[in-house]
Amino acid sequence: MKVLQVELGERGYPIYIGADLLSQAALLTQHIKAKQVLVVTNSTIAPLYLEKVLQQLQDYCVETVILPDGEQYKTLEYVAHIFDKLLAQKFSRNATLIALGGGVIGDMGGFAAACYQRGIAFVQIPTTLLAQVDSSVGGKTGVNHPLGKNMIGAFYQPQCVIADASVLNTLDDRQLSAGLAEVIKYGLIRDAEFFVWLENNLSALLARDNTALAYAIEQSCLNKAQVVAEDETETGVRATLNLGHTFGHAIETGSGYGHYLHGEAVAIGTCQAADLSRRKGWLNDVDVNRIIALFEQANLPTTPPKALDSERFLELMAVDKKNIDGNIRLILLEKIGKATLPIYVDQDLLGLTLKTYGRE
Amino acid sequence: MKVLQVELGERGYPIYIGADLLSQAALLTQHIKAKQVLVVTNSTIAPLYLEKVLQQLQDYCVETVILPDGEQYKTLEYVAHIFDKLLAQKFSRNATLIALGGGVIGDMGGFAAACYQRGIAFVQIPTTLLAQVDSSVGGKTGVNHPLGKNMIGAFYQPQCVIADASVLNTLDDRQLSAGLAEVIKYGLIRDAEFFVWLENNLSALLARDNTALAYAIEQSCLNKAQVVAEDETETGVRATLNLGHTFGHAIETGSGYGHYLHGEAVAIGTCQAADLSRRKGWLNDVDVNRIIALFEQANLPTTPPKALDSERFLELMAVDKKNIDGNIRLILLEKIGKATLPIYVDQDLLGLTLKTYGRE
Repeated sequence: MKVLQVELGERGYPIYIGADLLSQAALLTQHIKAKQVLVVTNSTIAPLYLEKVLQQLQDYCVETVILPDGEQYKTLEYVAHIFDKLLAQKFSRNATLIALGGGVIGDMGGFAAACYQRGIAFVQIPTTLLAQVDSSVGGKTGVNHPLGKNMIGAFYQPQCVIADASVLNTLDDRQLSAGLAEVIKYGLIRDAEFFVWLENNLSALLARDNTALAYAIEQSCLNKAQVVAEDETETGVRATLNLGHTFGHAIETGSGYGHYLHGEAVAIGTCQAADLSRRKGWLNDVDVNRIIALFEQANLPTTPPKALDSERFLELMAVDKKNIDGNIRLILLEKIGKATLPIYVDQDLLGLTLKTYGRE
Repeated sequence: MKVLQVELGERGYPIYIGADLLSQAALLTQHIKAKQVLVVTNSTIAPLYLEKVLQQLQDYCVETVILPDGEQYKTLEYVAHIFDKLLAQKFSRNATLIALGGGVIGDMGGFAAACYQRGIAFVQIPTTLLAQVDSSVGGKTGVNHPLGKNMIGAFYQPQCVIADASVLNTLDDRQLSAGLAEVIKYGLIRDAEFFVWLENNLSALLARDNTALAYAIEQSCLNKAQVVAEDETETGVRATLNLGHTFGHAIETGSGYGHYLHGEAVAIGTCQAADLSRRKGWLNDVDVNRIIALFEQANLPTTPPKALDSERFLELMAVDKKNIDGNIRLILLEKIGKATLPIYVDQDLLGLTLKTYGRE
């Protein structure tokens, strides 16, 4: 097992990475300070792993909330179900909330923990590759709004994250690929060496080689932890983690939450960002083709849905947390392994990417 | 004008206290960093002061949300109206939210600002005495839940607070009295000298003598700011600000939000806490009578509603943020001018207070 410490002063916390971690009770219980524990999970994960987690918690007063599975349930209304349970069971401020599931459960559970009585302890057990490499680091929690993704939320750090590589054995292929989109992102924005490693090891990852997966999780978390430690509340370099996300969020919102997986939308968005980076003169054709090829090898989509025309894209992209006074700012690539900070982009160039990339 | 700085490191902020501050544009605009501004207010305050505030904001892109007036609307559902407006108008993360109103508007506006895009700038213009002396200091924001008051929220500090004593001229008598309940509380928990001053000047406050009001606001904010600076997230001494509040919240929840004003419920609860402090042997009859007399002079209720029997009280008090694993903890008085930290109370003594105080 590897222990990666996220350095955030008194809000710092460990990420445990390894195989079969869910069976190690002490890993979990050392981070629970009082008797009351709420496990929040979803209807897909509950039959697979809930019992295993509850077995570690026999000395506690445990309640569970099982939410429906899917991005379309990541709303204030469903977070309210968590509050209802906490209050109905008279949970105190020293209670602990465990989020057992993918990114949606982590985001909702973390947001509920941040808001309940203005903050209770929170433990994350991510069960998808995406959640293990992305939402487990950095404390971003929240829910969607019909008009924009992740628009309501809080920065809230967990007590610990338990990233058990063994749970990926039950992850379906599409979810595994979606997670790889964010893994590839870390290579693109700040780790060219890791990008090359991914080009050479992608088939091992797709075959769920445990050693390869653990390495990819560790490198991803390490890269993200370094960025987040530098800039916890995203006033600077942290925004680079959003490579491809402004396009991607527009695709998710415009197609209806739940149609594309987050990682799929990010894969397409990153290819659009790469295309725009080529138009800026930073990437060459070889770079862009390598990027598209790696996403394709990971069985990810690389072209935007036909139904979203450029006008609708612009409209959707106008609601983004990086924007200032409503003006679109994007993360682009100076080269493979180096992202820009958020920049204003020439509207004509952006229009060209939206109208032509992947449209032929 | 007095400027009182709340010392919270990089989250510190000024409170401006004085007369006719709403007419001073620079006071407000120096704290607004970008063009987009949302003013959140209610249907009572909007006709009185919204125009005055908007006049100071002619150079900005301003939107308004006018909520219905009352504690019963302090819910997640109504906070969602604020999110709807922010998103419909494509407000960015550098936007500013101004809460113009009493404690309910401040709490809801602050919570919306804390959560929108994980945090936008927030300015508080409290228009009740209660909000000026209580919620303007300390960054507690949030909403109620049918099962408990202020159970969902965030600690979130404003950019500044503008406490304009002139707006109290339009405050109705009942609201003014409710504010005095919290003012009296500061004397009781940590400032015996201020308590005596209040005994001597209460009629001037009721007559809305501007000098007396400004002094009472300043002393209250000063006391609260010192407590909050010591303990921002309420792990220790800050809990003393909750004197009378555990009883009071039970009265509010048990009577239906909106029946009692918060200050009225706190006045009753503080008398109950004083009665219990006498049973503990800390206060004598003279102390308790001085406390009750001062609340009565402020035209505040001092006995609990007949409809709430002791069983129901205990049930409601079991949901309180100070509790640990569901056990009730209370703030009591060692003497006038000195509160205890949260303590577990002998259930028999608590039962006696609930069954006998104010029940004859």
